[in-house]
Amino acid sequence: MKLYSYFRSSAAYRVRIALNLKGLSYETIPVHLTKEGGQQFAEAYRHLNPAQLVPTLVDDGLAITQSVAILEYLEETHPEPALLPADPAARARVRAIMQTIACDIHPLNNLRVLKYLKHELGIDVEQRDAWYKHWVALGLEAVESMLASSADTGLFCHGDKPGLADALLVPQMANARRLGCDESVLPVIVRIDKACMQLEAFRLAAPENQPDAEA
Amino acid sequence: MKLYSYFRSSAAYRVRIALNLKGLSYETIPVHLTKEGGQQFAEAYRHLNPAQLVPTLVDDGLAITQSVAILEYLEETHPEPALLPADPAARARVRAIMQTIACDIHPLNNLRVLKYLKHELGIDVEQRDAWYKHWVALGLEAVESMLASSADTGLFCHGDKPGLADALLVPQMANARRLGCDESVLPVIVRIDKACMQLEAFRLAAPENQPDAEA
Repeated sequence: MKLYSYFRSSAAYRVRIALNLKGLSYETIPVHLTKEGGQQFAEAYRHLNPAQLVPTLVDDGLAITQSVAILEYLEETHPEPALLPADPAARARVRAIMQTIACDIHPLNNLRVLKYLKHELGIDVEQRDAWYKHWVALGLEAVESMLASSADTGLFCHGDKPGLADALLVPQMANARRLGCDESVLPVIVRIDKACMQLEAFRLAAPENQPDAEA
Repeated sequence: MKLYSYFRSSAAYRVRIALNLKGLSYETIPVHLTKEGGQQFAEAYRHLNPAQLVPTLVDDGLAITQSVAILEYLEETHPEPALLPADPAARARVRAIMQTIACDIHPLNNLRVLKYLKHELGIDVEQRDAWYKHWVALGLEAVESMLASSADTGLFCHGDKPGLADALLVPQMANARRLGCDESVLPVIVRIDKACMQLEAFRLAAPENQPDAEA
């Protein structure tokens, strides 16, 4: 498998975690999101990924876009170890956590949106950081509440084994930390994030451990 | 089943379509997103949905949040008629279309974001409409390209039966149309949207046909 990835992309980071948890080897093809005006806009890449975003997973000639679609595909094609629980109600709980991060937090804070705020709307750095922290706080506080209120939460987001919700949570927390978001109101998330970072699968997926990492 | 819904919410609209396609009856519990400062912020609702968004599906006491998680749950618990194809590669294709709409378009244009742009960033109506159209155009052009380039596209997004990708596409197109986005560059989407609106399941799910509809 080939993963078109950018070391700083938290959507690519999610997929790297899942590939590692499943013990699947893959080749990283770096797509630099700012160099050369953005390598994701190159014609060849657009052919693979019409939305011109990372990641894209290529498996035996099949190009799959959208990190959550890739995660579900990996779960279906490589079911062991399972990263989703078996029961539909439990799967719905995990997917609701995943979508809260994938829909309610991340899309508002990715590179292209921050660029639009700056260049098209003339937002200054202070306003941009406030925007960023606002959506992170709102979204992660909802996730914290989902985790804190449920007996299904274990050492990880769902039970005592890492899974797809953790694969979304850890990259989001890395972003939140980088922007200095308030972690004190997120005790369950902080605990789970630490448990994940004990595992090699998560550590090896981190931005600083990617072949295209920059200082 | 009970669906906490707001007639104008396109995330709730997705779920209404899927429930109708599967022939499942449900009770609508209206959650008015602007009345009384937003009924989604009421304590009782927050208990069901910590992110304080619509929709929430309650099935036999189980509250499920996030429209995409609800759609996957309905597919798993009521597999007939299938709204996802059987093959993992085909499922990944459908989910990539779903996530392009659910992550790359809708989160940028929902009510709370437009409110933030107006109240916190002082954006005027013209700038707000440009923002809205920008993300719709970018996202729907990616979806158009995914549909136009694939032999799997049929009368609907995937093959000749309506499914989950269509359940996301139709509400997004309704929004795009309301804001006067340019449809001329989206011929395949326009064709599929029309095919969907021939079906009662889609028509009955439309905002104007909800019990909480307003003029």
